[in-house]
Amino acid sequence: MAKRAYPLSKVYGLLETGPVILLTTGDGQRANVMTLSWHSMLEFEPPLVACVVSDRCHSFGLLQASGECVINIPTVEIAKQVVGCGNCSGAKTDKFKKFGLSTKPARTVAPPLIEACYASLEARVIDTRMVESYALFVVEVQKAWVDSSLKDPRTLHHRGYGRFMVAGETIKLPSKMR
Amino acid sequence: MAKRAYPLSKVYGLLETGPVILLTTGDGQRANVMTLSWHSMLEFEPPLVACVVSDRCHSFGLLQASGECVINIPTVEIAKQVVGCGNCSGAKTDKFKKFGLSTKPARTVAPPLIEACYASLEARVIDTRMVESYALFVVEVQKAWVDSSLKDPRTLHHRGYGRFMVAGETIKLPSKMR
Repeated sequence: MAKRAYPLSKVYGLLETGPVILLTTGDGQRANVMTLSWHSMLEFEPPLVACVVSDRCHSFGLLQASGECVINIPTVEIAKQVVGCGNCSGAKTDKFKKFGLSTKPARTVAPPLIEACYASLEARVIDTRMVESYALFVVEVQKAWVDSSLKDPRTLHHRGYGRFMVAGETIKLPSKMR
Repeated sequence: MAKRAYPLSKVYGLLETGPVILLTTGDGQRANVMTLSWHSMLEFEPPLVACVVSDRCHSFGLLQASGECVINIPTVEIAKQVVGCGNCSGAKTDKFKKFGLSTKPARTVAPPLIEACYASLEARVIDTRMVESYALFVVEVQKAWVDSSLKDPRTLHHRGYGRFMVAGETIKLPSKMR
């Protein structure tokens, strides 16, 4: 995808719809990617995001060690790869190779951007106080890349057990909300 | 909506798609409702949910005081009311009356269920450690009510400034994920 730099002030609009994300982690030597649905915006700007990464996941150790990740947002075109990444462990598998997910170096962090995703958000862990209780990492987005030619990206929204709601039409109502 | 008791083990599937919710708060005397998009599942069972409720909102005080809320999930049919609730304050307005939102008493908490929502989750605050930093309340769902006749509820997913993605089709892929 032809992603370009994207204003940090608009990042919340990409995530507050609740899409499944592909989280990349790593330290420059090793890298991994996991499928994740449990996340929430916490602040508009700088964009703060809460991500739940279970300590049963291989990514947990990588995220804790480097404190860096990239939040990649896939669309329905790569649904099979998204499910594939959620169904095996990076401890045993090079998922990028297995699922044919090409990567590109990030600008500000070690984990890579996934080319086939329409948006990639480079982020750094800024708060680990809720990791022990809820495996919840607070990350701050440093740099955002988006293919803005996709006006209505057909993001995936997990309903459980491999059932995904695919983003439908967008409606606009008069609103004072940001 | 004809909501019936719903297994707590399946609650995560309602929320991890990232729908806009109508959060009701109150203490039995007063009640309020706000529109909210910043939430995340934290645990399957008992279902734990992180909700961001800004201290600029009237609901913040009610939630802090009673420690109780109901997470109501609306569909596109009441999009106007959803936006309306996000555009005025319960400090000055009885939003239930203003937007014609009928309510029903909850079973386990004081805040009411919203009849026009297809799902309502009665919940109690169990952790306020992240309220000061991020206005993030951790709540535990006590009791869930769902109109299961809606197989593919057309939930709303906020993209910013009154633009909502409406839930589209659901696809199913072979998966080992819960």
